[in-house]
Amino acid sequence: MALIVQKFGGSSVADRDRIMNVARIVANTRAAGNDAVVVVSAQGDTTDDLIAKAGEITHNPSQREMDMLLSTGEQISIALLSMALSVVGCPSISLTGWQAGFHTNRAYTRARIKHLDTERIESELSRNRVVVVAGFQGINRYDDITTLGRGGSDTSAVAIAAALHADLCQIYTDVDGVYTADPRLVRCARKLNEISFDEMLELASLGAQVLNNRSVELAKKYSVNLEVRSSLTNVPGTIVKEVTDVEGMLIKGVAKDKDVAVISILEVPDVPGASFKVFSLMAQRRINVDIILQSSGKDGCKDVIFTVPLADVDAALAVLEENRSRFGCGEILADRSVAKVSIVGAGMQSHSGVAARMFEALFEANINIRMISTSEIKISVLIAEEDADRAVNVIHDAFLN
Amino acid sequence: MALIVQKFGGSSVADRDRIMNVARIVANTRAAGNDAVVVVSAQGDTTDDLIAKAGEITHNPSQREMDMLLSTGEQISIALLSMALSVVGCPSISLTGWQAGFHTNRAYTRARIKHLDTERIESELSRNRVVVVAGFQGINRYDDITTLGRGGSDTSAVAIAAALHADLCQIYTDVDGVYTADPRLVRCARKLNEISFDEMLELASLGAQVLNNRSVELAKKYSVNLEVRSSLTNVPGTIVKEVTDVEGMLIKGVAKDKDVAVISILEVPDVPGASFKVFSLMAQRRINVDIILQSSGKDGCKDVIFTVPLADVDAALAVLEENRSRFGCGEILADRSVAKVSIVGAGMQSHSGVAARMFEALFEANINIRMISTSEIKISVLIAEEDADRAVNVIHDAFLN
Repeated sequence: MALIVQKFGGSSVADRDRIMNVARIVANTRAAGNDAVVVVSAQGDTTDDLIAKAGEITHNPSQREMDMLLSTGEQISIALLSMALSVVGCPSISLTGWQAGFHTNRAYTRARIKHLDTERIESELSRNRVVVVAGFQGINRYDDITTLGRGGSDTSAVAIAAALHADLCQIYTDVDGVYTADPRLVRCARKLNEISFDEMLELASLGAQVLNNRSVELAKKYSVNLEVRSSLTNVPGTIVKEVTDVEGMLIKGVAKDKDVAVISILEVPDVPGASFKVFSLMAQRRINVDIILQSSGKDGCKDVIFTVPLADVDAALAVLEENRSRFGCGEILADRSVAKVSIVGAGMQSHSGVAARMFEALFEANINIRMISTSEIKISVLIAEEDADRAVNVIHDAFLN
Repeated sequence: MALIVQKFGGSSVADRDRIMNVARIVANTRAAGNDAVVVVSAQGDTTDDLIAKAGEITHNPSQREMDMLLSTGEQISIALLSMALSVVGCPSISLTGWQAGFHTNRAYTRARIKHLDTERIESELSRNRVVVVAGFQGINRYDDITTLGRGGSDTSAVAIAAALHADLCQIYTDVDGVYTADPRLVRCARKLNEISFDEMLELASLGAQVLNNRSVELAKKYSVNLEVRSSLTNVPGTIVKEVTDVEGMLIKGVAKDKDVAVISILEVPDVPGASFKVFSLMAQRRINVDIILQSSGKDGCKDVIFTVPLADVDAALAVLEENRSRFGCGEILADRSVAKVSIVGAGMQSHSGVAARMFEALFEANINIRMISTSEIKISVLIAEEDADRAVNVIHDAFLN
């Protein structure tokens, strides 16, 4: 007898047949002797439809009212799933975010969970019901409805699993697990049986969009066992947990991220504090700087080169140009035609030569490396965007075949 | 400076243009120096669409889950209207039923308001905001969402007006007031400037579907001034209030109701308690009996004849046949091809000859009267359904031309 939290995304509840399918999965979980809390997202295109309705009225809606509007999507899903569960003979009750006890801060459209009051969920579980909870939403201290932002339903599910000390938190999606690379890109990509939280975090932030990062961070913090699996096939997925087998795979995956651009500030006078000024400006504007390269100074000058998310390039250039006089620098350039390709694996900590093998594979494919960044479990290289898909394939061949 | 509650039905907020129209009406109310609380229903077909979604899954949904599902309709409306109000420069905030303080009993899909906690509404009004409230919904003592049933948004609006001692409660609809008869039926039907609560109640229960009866009862109980008016034209509507001018119109309207059937129990032994048994059976099954006719006894028998709502005929016949042995009666018959035509007016209390004038008009039109029922402010006749439209016209001519 275990307690299992199961989360189903929008495509898993998109229509009547999908909802009935989810009801059968949950009923099977119960029939196997487990308690279940089920977290669901809005159906298929519901959120987009609601955003379109708002867009007809204003392009600058109040964020509070957007949350009021969008939270109806999950509320529709939970009512329908609860009805479907009764059809398959499974007693259940649906709860909105506020009924389920999700208290958040007041940041509409991107709220953070402050506290989960589990009294109602636990009381319903003790009455032998499946509890169907609306993901993505909560209330703030003013009793106003908030939403958690992108991937919020994953976070809702992990928060419930953490608060209830659930045995497992299953994230059902339309892929059947975490792969060593994007299967659409790399033909021989393999599904992983296990991956560690840290590896998953690196993969997620590197563009492997299976699990929302906030949910993985939360799962790591509270040691929640996660499983990513498909709602369409009945096969085991990928378990995400604290420590995985060290034996076995040296690296867990290859990821690419095209949502990146390089900014080069040329001929910055080589005096103390020059880089500091640049990066404090970026921090003030909340622009995340990732890889940084600083050329060694010559003629009393150096070049400061760094990557930012593609969406922030214009803002970054604007603030740099505005403050150009403070640097006394030369040209400021941006290159948007780049991609970041990375390998991730806790195993590389104890193995030398991993970076060398990656660079060799790229060299043999005649792919030029522009920047390099490493962490304990990750190596990233910045290359031309046009080489990205080929790079993923040759690196995957070098490590995972 | 007055406080005005304004209620807009589903057709008034059906699409973007209609919502902007409502926003302008509300903004004008504010610009004239008034505070406003606005109650809205679900957009156009939203409720039907949600019912259809549930119907795809089960034909016997949990009523609690239906309320969870249907209450999203008004929540979408309030968010969109609040956005529209900001577009026309009118500060506002939307509140769901539970946020607005509607506490109901636990009768899902047909809940009754037990208590309205106005703290949040008053606090938002004091911040100089228009408060946009989701009609039709509340929560029960378990913190579960309930809905008020058909016409519930009218009731929500009147309840707010009563609790806040509002100066006026305007019910915006797609007709511009209460008419002396259905304008589609009677070409020279006239709009009334005023009508009393009692007259409105009689008209509503007689088939003039402008205002929900519960909302009129509530308005009468708490002396809320109501106005029925159109959201599409800017003309004064009909004021519903406690007492109207006695001078002027003898009767206020002619209504027909085709939702009625006659049940005849023939040859009931003429002993004490015979009628009691019949009507206590109807009461047990919660079937409303309206007009009752009992023939004078001859040969030791009498006929008991009465009307019931069309929807209850089969249930009434079934329970009577089941208990036939208790009456020792003859045939039990039902006639569904009847209609009730009524005149309503407080003025008839002080005028004799009203009934005679009505019957004369029907006689001259060669329309046979099967049953008659009178109250202080109403005279109803039961006639053949095929004569109903003609009857409304000749009676209207006799009194209102």
